[in-house]
Amino acid sequence: MMRGLLLVKSGGAAALPEWQACFAGVAPGLEVRWWDDPTVDPDAVTHVLVWEPTPGRLARYPNLRVIFSSAAGVDHITCDPDLPRGVPIVRMATEETAQTMGEYVCLAALSILRDGNRLAAAQASRRWDSFEQPHTALDKRVGVMGLGNIGQVVARMLRGLGFTVSGWARTPRKLDGIEVHSSLDSLLAESDILVGLLPETPQTRGLIDRERIRRLPRGAGIVNAGRGSLIVMPDLIAALDEGHLGAAYLDVFDPEPLPADHPAWRHPRITVTSHVAGFASRRARARAVVAALEAQERGEMLPNLYQADRGY
Amino acid sequence: MMRGLLLVKSGGAAALPEWQACFAGVAPGLEVRWWDDPTVDPDAVTHVLVWEPTPGRLARYPNLRVIFSSAAGVDHITCDPDLPRGVPIVRMATEETAQTMGEYVCLAALSILRDGNRLAAAQASRRWDSFEQPHTALDKRVGVMGLGNIGQVVARMLRGLGFTVSGWARTPRKLDGIEVHSSLDSLLAESDILVGLLPETPQTRGLIDRERIRRLPRGAGIVNAGRGSLIVMPDLIAALDEGHLGAAYLDVFDPEPLPADHPAWRHPRITVTSHVAGFASRRARARAVVAALEAQERGEMLPNLYQADRGY
Repeated sequence: MMRGLLLVKSGGAAALPEWQACFAGVAPGLEVRWWDDPTVDPDAVTHVLVWEPTPGRLARYPNLRVIFSSAAGVDHITCDPDLPRGVPIVRMATEETAQTMGEYVCLAALSILRDGNRLAAAQASRRWDSFEQPHTALDKRVGVMGLGNIGQVVARMLRGLGFTVSGWARTPRKLDGIEVHSSLDSLLAESDILVGLLPETPQTRGLIDRERIRRLPRGAGIVNAGRGSLIVMPDLIAALDEGHLGAAYLDVFDPEPLPADHPAWRHPRITVTSHVAGFASRRARARAVVAALEAQERGEMLPNLYQADRGY
Repeated sequence: MMRGLLLVKSGGAAALPEWQACFAGVAPGLEVRWWDDPTVDPDAVTHVLVWEPTPGRLARYPNLRVIFSSAAGVDHITCDPDLPRGVPIVRMATEETAQTMGEYVCLAALSILRDGNRLAAAQASRRWDSFEQPHTALDKRVGVMGLGNIGQVVARMLRGLGFTVSGWARTPRKLDGIEVHSSLDSLLAESDILVGLLPETPQTRGLIDRERIRRLPRGAGIVNAGRGSLIVMPDLIAALDEGHLGAAYLDVFDPEPLPADHPAWRHPRITVTSHVAGFASRRARARAVVAALEAQERGEMLPNLYQADRGY
């Protein structure tokens, strides 16, 4: 039976009873306590499940065995300069995260396809605007940056809507019905809608800048549901204003929350959402943590392990 | 070779050259003229392709052989009290219409699922609103009213997003992965999102009224992309205001255009679009007309024939 003390920082202190209930059902031997509980003995902490852990704090637990990210990305953990060395970090991967990310990207892609900005403007001005739409999904190409667990599900859902889907991935792979590019430039040239699902790493930061946006076909749309740092925002806004880009649908920003005076909030061609694209229930995440620990107990590799050399 | 004179009323007089070019490619023997062209000899008119033909006008063509609707519905033709008897009426059915209808319904269903109204309100007030969403498509049931050519494609696209899909149809049928109800009440009881794709007939007019809306689960959403007369609008608005319904996404109204002072335009839980859900290019529609005429020349039944007894 799994034993240990799991410290949780995810969803605020009010979420603790729910986390405890979720773990009680699947790992009754695991004690679940809140991050800021002053009665916790640092030596007793064996595991943490965290979102944006306070820098320096993880170094205080000498018996820490695994750091679980409560979300798909780990940049909010690895940015800690005092991160303890040698403690494995596990990315959260659940079917729900991939499913909800797919829903969000499909919503964004359909909104761009069907000119959601014009539809919303017509309603706002109570104007009957029965415009002829020039395209169906059957003649639009979506390029997905990032084809891991999440990207593959997203790509499959987009194909089900009729889009032609290709992708870009570091690791060459074959995927049913999806062309995988190893060159980003070749993906960009063929993407009427570009979808960002990339983690934040030194390689992805600022990747979508003026020059790369220019490689997209004129009128293209951009969806970003990975990390905000992927896109150089002033370049994106300039490309929208010049008409090179048609629309952007953005869920992630750098920094977050997006400041209230940021021009993206009011831009007529930018849809802003507040980092809501991908999510998983606490129940599903607790199950994923326990499944990883069980694999480890059986002597297997921890799944979805952060690798420092590739940055995610 | 197909011969005759096709009178067109669809897309306005400015669309005539495009219609002529589309037909020239597939039926060079067919003369294509505009509806209000004063030089057309009424005796020469053999076919019409129309949207909302002026009442009484079709009776003036003694040699009319087929009436083609330029859209999926035919109520805009059959409402003519002087409609010539015995002239077959053909509904427009193209793959593009089903595809675009599917795109619209998926956009609407995803918007309802992910609380598009709240997302839009947050952006409008520049408020970072990273709310926890309680559901994924995997635990939502969509009920599709109308499972003809269009409804079947819509249902398949919704399933690809993860929704559980059932349907309601007059004609019993088996569909892969879709439960078909013959009782409307049983469909309503199991529809978190109800999708209307029905033609306007005496049976469908006012079908979704206060009582039937009450049979939907509390918090349900409604999408209507068939005909506006399906829904009793004051009942829909009352159900939204009482909280029994969560959201409505409406593309069709009775009458159209929706009057500028109609409360739907400004209702915070109603998305209004201007009859843009399903469409097909003129090229695709010209091909469908020619394919029907070719079938007739081969002695086959005209496809997608209006049947007066069922009303569509």
